Amino acid sequence: MEDIVQLQYALDTFYFLICGVLVMWMAAGFAMLEAGLVRTKSTTEILAKNIALFAIASVMYLLVGYYIMYSSESSILPSLGFLIGGENALDEVLAGGDEAPYYSNRADFFFQIVFAGACMSIVSGAVAERMKLWAFLAFAVVMTGFIYPIQGAWSWGEGWLDEIGYSDYAGSGIVHMAGATAALAGVILLGARKGKYGPNGQVNAIPGCNLPLSTLGIFILWMGWFGFNGGSELKISDVESANNVAQVLVNTNMAAAGGLIAAMIVSRILFGKTDLTMTLNGALAGLVAITADPLSPSAFAAVLIGAVGGVIVVFSVLGLDKLKLDDPAGAISAHGSAGIWGVLAVPLTNADASFGAQLIGVIAIFAFVFIASLIVWSILKAVMGIRVSEEEEYEGVDIAECGMEAYPEFTSAKK
Amino acid sequence: MEDIVQLQYALDTFYFLICGVLVMWMAAGFAMLEAGLVRTKSTTEILAKNIALFAIASVMYLLVGYYIMYSSESSILPSLGFLIGGENALDEVLAGGDEAPYYSNRADFFFQIVFAGACMSIVSGAVAERMKLWAFLAFAVVMTGFIYPIQGAWSWGEGWLDEIGYSDYAGSGIVHMAGATAALAGVILLGARKGKYGPNGQVNAIPGCNLPLSTLGIFILWMGWFGFNGGSELKISDVESANNVAQVLVNTNMAAAGGLIAAMIVSRILFGKTDLTMTLNGALAGLVAITADPLSPSAFAAVLIGAVGGVIVVFSVLGLDKLKLDDPAGAISAHGSAGIWGVLAVPLTNADASFGAQLIGVIAIFAFVFIASLIVWSILKAVMGIRVSEEEEYEGVDIAECGMEAYPEFTSAKK
Amino acid sequence: MEDIVQLQYALDTFYFLICGVLVMWMAAGFAMLEAGLVRTKSTTEILAKNIALFAIASVMYLLVGYYIMYSSESSILPSLGFLIGGENALDEVLAGGDEAPYYSNRADFFFQIVFAGACMSIVSGAVAERMKLWAFLAFAVVMTGFIYPIQGAWSWGEGWLDEIGYSDYAGSGIVHMAGATAALAGVILLGARKGKYGPNGQVNAIPGCNLPLSTLGIFILWMGWFGFNGGSELKISDVESANNVAQVLVNTNMAAAGGLIAAMIVSRILFGKTDLTMTLNGALAGLVAITADPLSPSAFAAVLIGAVGGVIVVFSVLGLDKLKLDDPAGAISAHGSAGIWGVLAVPLTNADASFGAQLIGVIAIFAFVFIASLIVWSILKAVMGIRVSEEEEYEGVDIAECGMEAYPEFTSAKK
Repeated sequence: MEDIVQLQYALDTFYFLICGVLVMWMAAGFAMLEAGLVRTKSTTEILAKNIALFAIASVMYLLVGYYIMYSSESSILPSLGFLIGGENALDEVLAGGDEAPYYSNRADFFFQIVFAGACMSIVSGAVAERMKLWAFLAFAVVMTGFIYPIQGAWSWGEGWLDEIGYSDYAGSGIVHMAGATAALAGVILLGARKGKYGPNGQVNAIPGCNLPLSTLGIFILWMGWFGFNGGSELKISDVESANNVAQVLVNTNMAAAGGLIAAMIVSRILFGKTDLTMTLNGALAGLVAITADPLSPSAFAAVLIGAVGGVIVVFSVLGLDKLKLDDPAGAISAHGSAGIWGVLAVPLTNADASFGAQLIGVIAIFAFVFIASLIVWSILKAVMGIRVSEEEEYEGVDIAECGMEAYPEFTSAKK
Repeated sequence: MEDIVQLQYALDTFYFLICGVLVMWMAAGFAMLEAGLVRTKSTTEILAKNIALFAIASVMYLLVGYYIMYSSESSILPSLGFLIGGENALDEVLAGGDEAPYYSNRADFFFQIVFAGACMSIVSGAVAERMKLWAFLAFAVVMTGFIYPIQGAWSWGEGWLDEIGYSDYAGSGIVHMAGATAALAGVILLGARKGKYGPNGQVNAIPGCNLPLSTLGIFILWMGWFGFNGGSELKISDVESANNVAQVLVNTNMAAAGGLIAAMIVSRILFGKTDLTMTLNGALAGLVAITADPLSPSAFAAVLIGAVGGVIVVFSVLGLDKLKLDDPAGAISAHGSAGIWGVLAVPLTNADASFGAQLIGVIAIFAFVFIASLIVWSILKAVMGIRVSEEEEYEGVDIAECGMEAYPEFTSAKK
Repeated sequence: MEDIVQLQYALDTFYFLICGVLVMWMAAGFAMLEAGLVRTKSTTEILAKNIALFAIASVMYLLVGYYIMYSSESSILPSLGFLIGGENALDEVLAGGDEAPYYSNRADFFFQIVFAGACMSIVSGAVAERMKLWAFLAFAVVMTGFIYPIQGAWSWGEGWLDEIGYSDYAGSGIVHMAGATAALAGVILLGARKGKYGPNGQVNAIPGCNLPLSTLGIFILWMGWFGFNGGSELKISDVESANNVAQVLVNTNMAAAGGLIAAMIVSRILFGKTDLTMTLNGALAGLVAITADPLSPSAFAAVLIGAVGGVIVVFSVLGLDKLKLDDPAGAISAHGSAGIWGVLAVPLTNADASFGAQLIGVIAIFAFVFIASLIVWSILKAVMGIRVSEEEEYEGVDIAECGMEAYPEFTSAKK
């Protein structure tokens, strides 16, 4: 019997770790997606932001974020000793009962860290090409150490949102909408890129410089999402959990497919051409939309939930441009608009969820993250400035911030 | 005892899911490989095809493909309820015996879906740079919903090829040759790219525009193949299965290595230079060749089986050019020619296989897929046209079909 | 009971295989990292070297390397029959006791092969842009078949370094410093790239041509390292092992984060700009540094160990340039200098390790690999030459060695 319990513990730990590795890999997906959607002159800097924010998220979540987010769970705190060397002891595991740990707390910590990184990754794309690198990194410190974990504690940390029945399986709201909301606050304070919006309301396309990178980014995110959603079942070592994890992977894939196809068709109808970047964002929106509940829907329903997300992202991108909110990567639409849809859609297939609780969750997370972010961005703006100079923006943030071009040997046809 | 059965079920399900994730990742490999082998002016479109076909394959296989391919298996059909919410119940699992499910049917479904995507991914490279995007997507609907599953049912669905003893572990024939055959039919109807073949029989090289992407694509495929072949053992939870899966991974790696080295040496001898694209296709051919039986050969034999595949792919590429069959990615050679070799090589190391049954399998799959594809391509040609106009091809399918360049800021030295 | 033993065996085998897949993936990381750090005219060739060396490592390690490295382990040799068809039999597994195999030897073989590939991958970056392709491949044959396994046998093959207590969990010294040392010997014999060092001691920057590729490469390596270090626990199927593997993944991530942040800050202070390539090498150095012991440190200590590695790599890169040792990828610094730090840092957190034994290990591995490599490089220089002609170097090794450009359609602003 003891051997079986140990083996269950080992399998659940291994499953958790592998899912965490897949989520870590999403950081590369965001980096590639964004590097392909900005201009060549802003590429080095967006790469620096993306990989540095993941490192900062790791350290900040270790220092304070994890404590803030999970300190209300009595079973976690005593185990935090592992960060300085403690661990789940064998007798604790074998004790049985609901309180007994059934996987390594370290694996949980690893999984949670990469989620903090994913949340912050959403921000970088929206503020690309004009925000100061170190102001962004300073925001990352506060976002991953405090803002994300504080609202995360409300639901996943057994807080008040959890108590009122807010249901968000892997974080359409808690991770994706939260990241998009922080980005929105930044974009409002930061203003649009020079030349994006004309004086008479025209919207000038600023095409992404490297679409294979963006496509690779979406493939990476699609792959990594199997860990993001699949790991959020938190257990796989019995028949029911294993069935659930499998259903989650099927639905995650189906929602991405539905979102992609819907956005592709809508963009073809609206623009007369098959817009690749809209198509890619459609897949992303499908993934975000299913994340609030990838378990309850049938595979068919997952296609539809994703497809609605794919439609939403197209109109959201167009709508934000009308509002002159310049988001080079479409991150606010893909993670924010589709995230809200995902959270609100849960009661459609999950009888345990209520529309009221979902709505409260959306409003609460949005309000808190927006206000907190606005305050932090404002302080940064006052203290160090958040936007590069006009000259630096014209020349490109790569030279200004990093002192190096991303593609130094390739001649550029445009500025 | 019940706990052990549940744990076995969980491990086999997890193993299946992880292998499926790796196979899904192959879709990114095909996208990068092909995006690197076409010209810059056709890059956006080949990316759109690759990611959209995976979405279409997912939906079509859900709607009809899986039923067609596996409906003859009595144990599967009752479980299809999971697509609309059912699942393997605990008592079924614990019932024991050969009929009892030992992993989640949903995980099997996930694994099968990504196979359908892989099969279709092969087609896009061969018809690149001149086929209409939406004609291609329409073909993807039929291929992944009907053509692939119909012939797949003959072997993996316990059909007549299975009964006569056709042996194809992970699908050198069923997946790879089938995809290459559909591509061949398309290429014949479509014709070569303008300028590829001169009036006096000369073959003009049209170099790929981005070789790092192609190399990345092969690395991704190499990695994903560990799931493609490794998952096809269908079980890992006992000593024999675990040994088998490990042997499959060793052999898969060895065949890729053998194919790469052989193609590299042959190209060096033939051309006087070390041709990177041939070298990459050699690795791919080695992977395809071992796929029909990655279990029976020793690691040494796997190197040789892969190496023969690597030699075949070089001569097949040269031969297709002699026939004026223009395949920008070499997909017909790497998946078709090497796939035939792989199927026919099975009896060399597997005493349970017969050369006769293998040959019948190759002929039957080729004949069916070729004729069915030719019919579908012909209908598409008549109804909507399958080839872009000369002007659009000259200008590039990216602008014509997607309205955007893949590398808008980079000046191009050539058309 | 038998079922449990089989299941443990299966889980440990699966864990090993997945970790091996992640390590194989590191080969792609090195390829992308190096392809981004060289110039466009040397890109095709560095890609060819990277993927070919992995194939060569696979075959050479199969032919001789594995035997050399592990022949002293009595439990391994009898099992080598699996290479030609044998396997762990069920009764061996069930026999129990310390001698009973608890995972498939084939999985171990797979894991070891990809380590040999990783070791060799380190070399290619340092000798990039001027070494003959086939001389490099010839060196890869000797390195992966003989030099790496001979010194590997001293520690992991239960040899004399193991006996004196040298402690190197996943190979900061055995793999990374060994690869860097072979690279150093090559660089010394080969000389710097033309134009790298001016007549009056000035160091001319030769910027990498494609920084998104390099960033992708670091993300891939970061991800693959979870398998590199995580798999080196060699077992996961009980509570203690599972806790250990989880701690290893946490610490690996933390050291990478620490190294990245430290290098970013140091480069910002030294150069006034946030140098992306230094930042990337900082993450790499952090990963290398923690590899000698990713288990003993707390997560906080792992950040610090990585951070020291990140500082070391910046000064090491600057120092090597002072010595006119031209290493385009910074591989000698990231794997060598940080590797030495990693090995020597083990006693700081691991009471079982002694500084003396660690120092002896560093000296022994360095001396042997350096001398052996110098001899092999010298023989290659005498027999076939190791450096391309000046004209070929000016024109680019891509045309000279591979007959094709990596980016044929993109016009280049510089030579």
